[in-house]
Amino acid sequence: MIAAGTATVRVGLLGAGRIGRLHGELLARRVPDAEVAAVFDTDGPLAEELAQQLGAAAAASVEELLAADLDAVAICSSSDTHVELILAATEAGKAIFCEKPVSLELGEVDRALAAVRRAGVPFQIGFNRRFDPGHESVRRAVVEGQVGTPQLVRISSRDPQPPSLPYVERSGGLFLDMTIHDFDMARFVTGSEVEEVYASGTVRIVPEYATAGDVDTAVVTLVHADGCLTVIDNSRSAAYGYDQRVEVFGSEGMAVSENPPIHHGVLVTADGSLRARLPGSFTDRYATSYEREWRAFIDALRDGVAPPLSPEDARAPLVIGLAARRSVRERRPVRIDEVSGS
Amino acid sequence: MIAAGTATVRVGLLGAGRIGRLHGELLARRVPDAEVAAVFDTDGPLAEELAQQLGAAAAASVEELLAADLDAVAICSSSDTHVELILAATEAGKAIFCEKPVSLELGEVDRALAAVRRAGVPFQIGFNRRFDPGHESVRRAVVEGQVGTPQLVRISSRDPQPPSLPYVERSGGLFLDMTIHDFDMARFVTGSEVEEVYASGTVRIVPEYATAGDVDTAVVTLVHADGCLTVIDNSRSAAYGYDQRVEVFGSEGMAVSENPPIHHGVLVTADGSLRARLPGSFTDRYATSYEREWRAFIDALRDGVAPPLSPEDARAPLVIGLAARRSVRERRPVRIDEVSGS
Amino acid sequence: MIAAGTATVRVGLLGAGRIGRLHGELLARRVPDAEVAAVFDTDGPLAEELAQQLGAAAAASVEELLAADLDAVAICSSSDTHVELILAATEAGKAIFCEKPVSLELGEVDRALAAVRRAGVPFQIGFNRRFDPGHESVRRAVVEGQVGTPQLVRISSRDPQPPSLPYVERSGGLFLDMTIHDFDMARFVTGSEVEEVYASGTVRIVPEYATAGDVDTAVVTLVHADGCLTVIDNSRSAAYGYDQRVEVFGSEGMAVSENPPIHHGVLVTADGSLRARLPGSFTDRYATSYEREWRAFIDALRDGVAPPLSPEDARAPLVIGLAARRSVRERRPVRIDEVSGS
Amino acid sequence: MIAAGTATVRVGLLGAGRIGRLHGELLARRVPDAEVAAVFDTDGPLAEELAQQLGAAAAASVEELLAADLDAVAICSSSDTHVELILAATEAGKAIFCEKPVSLELGEVDRALAAVRRAGVPFQIGFNRRFDPGHESVRRAVVEGQVGTPQLVRISSRDPQPPSLPYVERSGGLFLDMTIHDFDMARFVTGSEVEEVYASGTVRIVPEYATAGDVDTAVVTLVHADGCLTVIDNSRSAAYGYDQRVEVFGSEGMAVSENPPIHHGVLVTADGSLRARLPGSFTDRYATSYEREWRAFIDALRDGVAPPLSPEDARAPLVIGLAARRSVRERRPVRIDEVSGS
Repeated sequence: MIAAGTATVRVGLLGAGRIGRLHGELLARRVPDAEVAAVFDTDGPLAEELAQQLGAAAAASVEELLAADLDAVAICSSSDTHVELILAATEAGKAIFCEKPVSLELGEVDRALAAVRRAGVPFQIGFNRRFDPGHESVRRAVVEGQVGTPQLVRISSRDPQPPSLPYVERSGGLFLDMTIHDFDMARFVTGSEVEEVYASGTVRIVPEYATAGDVDTAVVTLVHADGCLTVIDNSRSAAYGYDQRVEVFGSEGMAVSENPPIHHGVLVTADGSLRARLPGSFTDRYATSYEREWRAFIDALRDGVAPPLSPEDARAPLVIGLAARRSVRERRPVRIDEVSGS
Repeated sequence: MIAAGTATVRVGLLGAGRIGRLHGELLARRVPDAEVAAVFDTDGPLAEELAQQLGAAAAASVEELLAADLDAVAICSSSDTHVELILAATEAGKAIFCEKPVSLELGEVDRALAAVRRAGVPFQIGFNRRFDPGHESVRRAVVEGQVGTPQLVRISSRDPQPPSLPYVERSGGLFLDMTIHDFDMARFVTGSEVEEVYASGTVRIVPEYATAGDVDTAVVTLVHADGCLTVIDNSRSAAYGYDQRVEVFGSEGMAVSENPPIHHGVLVTADGSLRARLPGSFTDRYATSYEREWRAFIDALRDGVAPPLSPEDARAPLVIGLAARRSVRERRPVRIDEVSGS
Repeated sequence: MIAAGTATVRVGLLGAGRIGRLHGELLARRVPDAEVAAVFDTDGPLAEELAQQLGAAAAASVEELLAADLDAVAICSSSDTHVELILAATEAGKAIFCEKPVSLELGEVDRALAAVRRAGVPFQIGFNRRFDPGHESVRRAVVEGQVGTPQLVRISSRDPQPPSLPYVERSGGLFLDMTIHDFDMARFVTGSEVEEVYASGTVRIVPEYATAGDVDTAVVTLVHADGCLTVIDNSRSAAYGYDQRVEVFGSEGMAVSENPPIHHGVLVTADGSLRARLPGSFTDRYATSYEREWRAFIDALRDGVAPPLSPEDARAPLVIGLAARRSVRERRPVRIDEVSGS
Repeated sequence: MIAAGTATVRVGLLGAGRIGRLHGELLARRVPDAEVAAVFDTDGPLAEELAQQLGAAAAASVEELLAADLDAVAICSSSDTHVELILAATEAGKAIFCEKPVSLELGEVDRALAAVRRAGVPFQIGFNRRFDPGHESVRRAVVEGQVGTPQLVRISSRDPQPPSLPYVERSGGLFLDMTIHDFDMARFVTGSEVEEVYASGTVRIVPEYATAGDVDTAVVTLVHADGCLTVIDNSRSAAYGYDQRVEVFGSEGMAVSENPPIHHGVLVTADGSLRARLPGSFTDRYATSYEREWRAFIDALRDGVAPPLSPEDARAPLVIGLAARRSVRERRPVRIDEVSGS
């Protein structure tokens, strides 16, 4: 795609909203050998404002952006535009970084990824948590054999604040919007595909979610191809902050990624020892992972190797999520091949 | 039963094996206001040896022991004798401390507990973990409202070494032998009964367990009457020691009981910070809980109040275990009332 | 002294007060192969009460106790009687366990220890903290080379409650009563003698201590023979409980003994993560060390080897304490040989 | 100085070496409302390279830089140039951020600070550690009364790697180069001035330091005006990384700033629980503090209030360092007023 050793990877940013701004600022300010060359958003003034801040050009259309001298695009627009943008970028021969999800429809995902594979363009989906140094240390311990054969995985993933009802209605629900990160994590840390899903979900926090057919509290059990069991618990509202823990238990030991406090001060009194609270937002919690995600993608482009996440990594968690959704509805374990359609 | 304020509670010990010895030594040496007055075991010399060590009399039969001047009995014999001993002790009007389980047969449990209730004798089942100070702090945080409404419970319970195949064959299997403690814990920390169970179990450690129809690795999801979800994971073999963690997540916060290391030394080198390993056995891990369990029972007898665990606490975890066993076999969630028979 | 492999080590207890009771109960109930055979106290009824509880005989006099069939004595009486009791026990050929200090007068200490050495009786001074598993792990890390050459030692030692003024007046003051444990710890963990002392002390907690010529808050710097520097800080009143930390920093790493909380529960809320408080008394904090101290002494007697602490271990910390006292008074560093008189 | 609410604070960077680059990149990329407008370095090409990266102009001389449209200067050049640059910037009416130290000569420090005070220009010295969130939490706990009256302070400050001999020779030695940060920290967390210093120092790591009259391992005791005692330990070489801990003990409790590991992964095996290592450099350890230091300075300028560190904060730690140096040489406690000359 781009010549290895090329000075700087030029990225076009598609989407100038909250997540587009986050990625744009990282690329412009913290990722070596990368720059934001162009910005497009359906909200033109928003694109211009961000372009100016990042020293980039504002593009008037997707076509204009794709016609520019770019090595890659970062797709950070609303989820329902991802497939079309992937197809357009693929046709333009650009490397693609795409925020999750590709789509909530499996057929659409397959259409987009088939095009990506045919064209052979580098493609990386935005499962940033894989690049969190703590979570990554869990994967590394597995790969290096320090935990032996994985047998049990525990993932807790709890958000500080429940999203709005409108967001929930278009998000695909808890399993496709939130747990999807945990499904990715389960595949990542074990290195094994998921074959069966059983999910229990309830509404404990926002009664209105029930009208949207969604839940806010859930426990999901996954059976992996290699026999490992993963259990995930989710909540849309953790009073104490952003709670994100991953643990792999195996025949030789256990690797855990614990919650980092916001600082390492401790107050010791007659009440006990009080450590600092957890981060209150994903941008605080995962700032490092977003930066490292981009470094990995840019490095892969410059080195001419495949990005660390494959197109299949963009598809598999969605399938697990669809199976989880069905499991809750039908109150039974659901096999992946019931849902996968392949 | 015994006059409140009586000097010393006299206990007759039924069973002089490993667990009988453990309870006997605690009673004789660490529990104020209690003494072991008599010991019986089908292995007479064993009973005599322990009796001598504890300053007690050896009884030649259960009848002889029950005829002695005793306030209470401690039933620590093999599980299949518990029901008959409970019935005999009940008839003799003794307060009863009974190691778990009462029986692996629900009908037998009901027969024994009905007699206990009719006679009105104090009865406490040996779910010692409730008296672990860390686990107890979790319960206290729930009771005092510090975690708000419980929504998610996580319990990890992993043994250091798998038991022998013969043991497994007569133990009732993982769910009735090992997870039963976690079922009790789930009821204890939430204060809510369990209504539905879904269990996944596999054989990952000891292939021979499969021939006994048992598993060595499992994940169980419980749905409580109040909507709380509990997830339990078990392993028969944790390379790093005895792993016992309990966590309640609620609307206001989270209470966790973490694993205590064997000491609080830390070695800090270029490799990181190495804390001491976990205890290697339940007697090390739960020594304090066994002592506090007895203090609570003895205090209840002396104060003339009901022991902290009720007969129902002896029955409910068994029912959950039976449901879990069926869930694994039938690969579906099982409602408690399908099993409970009541 | 006693034949290796002898069934049980018979100990005579001198002193039935708080510390005598603590040692007596450990010996009678928790230390294998040991028993309390006789008890003496100047308060006869107190001796009789304790003797009865421990299954021992009450002796009417020191002479009567020493004439009994004993292998060893435990000197737990008031400090000003220690020297005479050591001399008497030495003459009677008994192994001696002696609570610290031997005496606050160096000449008296030397008189007692000279007799011990001449007679060749086993002698162990009650610096129990060496047997704390956490502190011991620090020493072990040094011995095994995991921290390399010791260069800096940090010891924090803070009591929960200040003692009464009368106690302070007869205790020899902070450095001989409290810091003396830390002086022992500094020698223990480094394995190197102390050559120079600089101490700063102030009265911050109990103004009346000033009238007794004592301090309640202090920092002491020790220079060891091998060049290692130790810094100790002390307070007579820590609001949060009993604070006892030891740390050795060396060329290859650092070994630390941290404070154990009273349990391992954690409450996580929007305020942060609250761990349990520290123990409130030395009997809670150091229960294990007292038991292991006795096991080590009894094992040494049974194995016919020297106890783990030598007579010099009883003397050296006192000398350091005398130097610290002089340092505060004269506001200058004091060399050990200015005080030691040897 | 600058109108409150002004869009952007324009800073001129004096020095484009390692620390200048660090500050420049922070200002250009992470500090809102600030920009690097000009860069000067005696190494012209170096200045031009950095200027280009930061979107700033390269100045050909200090005079040219000071004549530019700037609100403030950041003095990041070699220490021996700080005084003259402060004087020049003061004359030019610029707000001044100055890396520590102002000078190693107290007279020079006084000359520079007198000019600053006369001119009334905002001045902030680069004691960045005050802005570390953990250390800051200790100060906050003191200010808010959570630890009560401070009685004992412990500071451990240990570098991963010893500096070169030439660096040591011109740095003023351990106490003026390294411990000076800890002297500042002691004043910061207690809020009390230092009155007396006793220092012990040895050469344990780099024998050549002795020829430069310096030490590499030290313990320093400070007596504060309010009676609080601070003890600092330093090493030039910690095998396990950058070790920076601060602790205030007071009448009501203790506030501690612990070492952050590089991530929060834990590996649990039969050897124990291994947490991640400490940061290997001050840029990793204190990245956040540098950013927050600048935010505080820029905010103060924009709000028209005094910066959080006063000119006295630039002077006092140097005086303590001079007293420490004398204390080691003369082997006695040294009062600050023996050195301060004021």
